[in-house]
Amino acid sequence: MIKIIAKVNVKEDCIEKFQNGAKEIVEKSRAEEGNISYSLNQNIKKPGEHVFIEEWKDEEAIKVHNETEHFTTIFPELLTMTVGEPEIELYKEV
Amino acid sequence: MIKIIAKVNVKEDCIEKFQNGAKEIVEKSRAEEGNISYSLNQNIKKPGEHVFIEEWKDEEAIKVHNETEHFTTIFPELLTMTVGEPEIELYKEV
Repeated sequence: MIKIIAKVNVKEDCIEKFQNGAKEIVEKSRAEEGNISYSLNQNIKKPGEHVFIEEWKDEEAIKVHNETEHFTTIFPELLTMTVGEPEIELYKEV
Repeated sequence: MIKIIAKVNVKEDCIEKFQNGAKEIVEKSRAEEGNISYSLNQNIKKPGEHVFIEEWKDEEAIKVHNETEHFTTIFPELLTMTVGEPEIELYKEV
């Protein structure tokens, strides 16, 4: 299993729109065969900071995900509402 | 539910010892009544970077956790094997 933590900083006046826009990517990612879990989370003390916490079966599942329409179209749209670069890190559970 | 992502940078020559030392805190935290999930994860590209990904029922569960012996004794021991300050952030799922 591979986990992804993807952190983005959403512009303060875009938070509601960002969260609404992300619903589709959350729902469709969860429906992928290679997905174990997928959630969007908002930092309690820094409301603009959001992290996607994702669990995937293996590298192949991530490759398939990265080529889905919901990833290639929705994620770039979401990024227009953020500042700075997204920080995307991959982890293996110890 | 509240999620915690706690990131630490483990000294390269301490990684094995850190991971072994963390086993007890993982096991005992999972056994807490207020815990939903608790895992230690290692960055695939930066082997020293580790994140605890935790899910707790509510703020009270975190308060109880922070006062447990496994947290107050093991976590400080683990931190002696790290560099820099731990980055601990709290999130709510959107």
